[in-house]
Amino acid sequence: MQYIILAIGDELLAGQVTDTNSGSIARILEPHGWELKRVETIADTAEALEDALDRALGEVNVVLTTGGLGPTKDDQTKQTLCRLFGASLRENLQVLENVKQVISRRNLRLNELTAHQALVPDNARIIQNEVGTAPILWFERPENRVVVCMPGVPFETVQMMERKVAPALIERFPEQDALVRHTVVAYDISESALAQILANWEDSLPSFAHLAYLPKPGIIRLRLDGHGPESIRPEMERLRRELISQIPPGNFLANGDITPEERLLQILTERHLTVSTAESCTGGTICARLCAIPGASDAMKGAVVAYSNEVKAEVLGVDRTDIERYGAVSQTVVEQMAAGVRKLTGSDFAVATSGIAGPGGGTAEKPVGTVWIATASPHGVHSECYHFPGTRDRVIDRAATSAIIALIRELSAPAKR
Amino acid sequence: MQYIILAIGDELLAGQVTDTNSGSIARILEPHGWELKRVETIADTAEALEDALDRALGEVNVVLTTGGLGPTKDDQTKQTLCRLFGASLRENLQVLENVKQVISRRNLRLNELTAHQALVPDNARIIQNEVGTAPILWFERPENRVVVCMPGVPFETVQMMERKVAPALIERFPEQDALVRHTVVAYDISESALAQILANWEDSLPSFAHLAYLPKPGIIRLRLDGHGPESIRPEMERLRRELISQIPPGNFLANGDITPEERLLQILTERHLTVSTAESCTGGTICARLCAIPGASDAMKGAVVAYSNEVKAEVLGVDRTDIERYGAVSQTVVEQMAAGVRKLTGSDFAVATSGIAGPGGGTAEKPVGTVWIATASPHGVHSECYHFPGTRDRVIDRAATSAIIALIRELSAPAKR
Repeated sequence: MQYIILAIGDELLAGQVTDTNSGSIARILEPHGWELKRVETIADTAEALEDALDRALGEVNVVLTTGGLGPTKDDQTKQTLCRLFGASLRENLQVLENVKQVISRRNLRLNELTAHQALVPDNARIIQNEVGTAPILWFERPENRVVVCMPGVPFETVQMMERKVAPALIERFPEQDALVRHTVVAYDISESALAQILANWEDSLPSFAHLAYLPKPGIIRLRLDGHGPESIRPEMERLRRELISQIPPGNFLANGDITPEERLLQILTERHLTVSTAESCTGGTICARLCAIPGASDAMKGAVVAYSNEVKAEVLGVDRTDIERYGAVSQTVVEQMAAGVRKLTGSDFAVATSGIAGPGGGTAEKPVGTVWIATASPHGVHSECYHFPGTRDRVIDRAATSAIIALIRELSAPAKR
Repeated sequence: MQYIILAIGDELLAGQVTDTNSGSIARILEPHGWELKRVETIADTAEALEDALDRALGEVNVVLTTGGLGPTKDDQTKQTLCRLFGASLRENLQVLENVKQVISRRNLRLNELTAHQALVPDNARIIQNEVGTAPILWFERPENRVVVCMPGVPFETVQMMERKVAPALIERFPEQDALVRHTVVAYDISESALAQILANWEDSLPSFAHLAYLPKPGIIRLRLDGHGPESIRPEMERLRRELISQIPPGNFLANGDITPEERLLQILTERHLTVSTAESCTGGTICARLCAIPGASDAMKGAVVAYSNEVKAEVLGVDRTDIERYGAVSQTVVEQMAAGVRKLTGSDFAVATSGIAGPGGGTAEKPVGTVWIATASPHGVHSECYHFPGTRDRVIDRAATSAIIALIRELSAPAKR
């Protein structure tokens, strides 16, 4: 089943908010064989919505909209839908009751604007929003067309898609064909080098299968898609194994669409090992990424963000003379940081970063982007100096990813060292 | 000048990558009075691109595309553009030279696939990509239409938009009218409560001005837009001051589109004060957010992520008996964490978090989402218990924002306590 998403909101077009809803919806519907044909991000005006709806309903059976259902004056969607679909707004007491409950859970009081959420088009099927105040509107249109309007708050959209909207859509439009997707992650190799290795194999793929490259700093995700009946599953499984066997072992990171930090946590948890971080230029990003994953507390001991030299010396035990002699961004300091946090927290493994994220602080000898990364483990301390291009956020992002990959490398092949 | 962006890529429609380019481009062009009419996110197929290009060129003079220019087989854009615009691919030696330079800066070797980047449509104006391998293609089309094709890598798109593409577009289509935008940030108030306070003022706005609400967890951004000639600037400036005067002083966070962490750093830097964090459930997120801002090192002393009880006790000096008696998620522990990290790092202010981010670890007494937040300052230690709904990432996000806002509150009105 093909569908189109209309993401409504001036704030999206102004670049003040990034649309993450479309991707979330796609990830929920895709395993059921639903294909997102297009996303249109449009202004919160009657004209833009009418125009986009017309076009979309001419192409596909299902149109999903997100946004434009808030209580304030800049949200026009509900009125426009009433006009287009010949409806009137009518108070719905169940919605009002739901709004009151949501509001009271948030320790807020119901006011006139929030109460407006209970005014809904009288020819729409209403799906109660269990986690927010704007109800979901489901319109049945002529010629087997369906328009479902959801709020724009990402948490609400994702929760309600999963709980109610996706099941209802799948029931309404049962699908024969499936999408079988396998993702494999490679690292320490460039996109084009990997593409050369895989070229012949890719050419030999059956027509229902397709390989795509999704490079991210430090890693390349390989997405192998198969469109067809359920019977392609075994063949897709065989292709997945073939793909993995084509990747040089030292460049294979993970089977599945997981991040380096998820992979690291998997390895640590499987082996009942613990980790800690000592971060200077990454400012806690490595630790925060690991802690964002459920179950992190099993492997994560803690972190010290040592932005100042006093913290490096007093908390992590880095030699003050070395800081003065070699600078905070140096091999000996980063190695002492890694060893120091490992000792302080009693973790099995540790990683440390010290670098110049910019925009200020660079010198001719140590330009912005210079980052020392050290790992400490039962096998000893190892360090490497990196030079990352780009802006501050990019340097921090790359340094954090590289530190996580350095740990994975240390855990995967200590014998290599 | 109205324009349309086509974001090309199966990975966008599959929800594997989020399109941030459109927002970046909008933020760059908007101050020059350029209005983004629509974004279409489309598949990397000839049919989808042809269809979307046709439609867009029928509506606006300028169409910008991002993505689809990579070296691997799943990128179709260049071939499709040649067919649509009657061009042939021809090797461009300057592009080849640029590709070689970029590749060597990245310590990689040129291979056949990367060299393909130097094949460009022979009727396109070429803008060298100074930070990547895919050149930017500028097509002049009949009836004063322009199509500019940029790579999909966000860093490259942003850099090249700022350096070359935006200046060239503005020169090609000089604009009379400007967009004057003011953003004001409020906190500790709900969207609808704020909307009620501002309703009368909003109704009195002149026709060229428009107010929009952009709620985010913990804050509400108010965007005041004025479209018109340069002469509206003084009036917009007056409206901005009026808007700020309408917001209750205790709910006014910042003048300008800045985040709570940026505001916190502003206040700290202005007053030459320093801060540190002791984080349990937020796992370093508060510190990482602060450190992501240029100049953070002036105010940031450091952080201790105390995921384990040993780190809480040994590094931060929390009383072991209190941890056993009251649990790690308790008022006394979080207050000792805040005081402990303040003492350890010698910072003026400190904030600490201890809570249950989930999905596991909740109890009837302390359900998932329970988070204690404490601030420590020369005025003493203060703490508050929060209950955040939702998933792990949402609890961490809200807890980090609330901790930052708690610090701002402490810094803004210590006398209130």
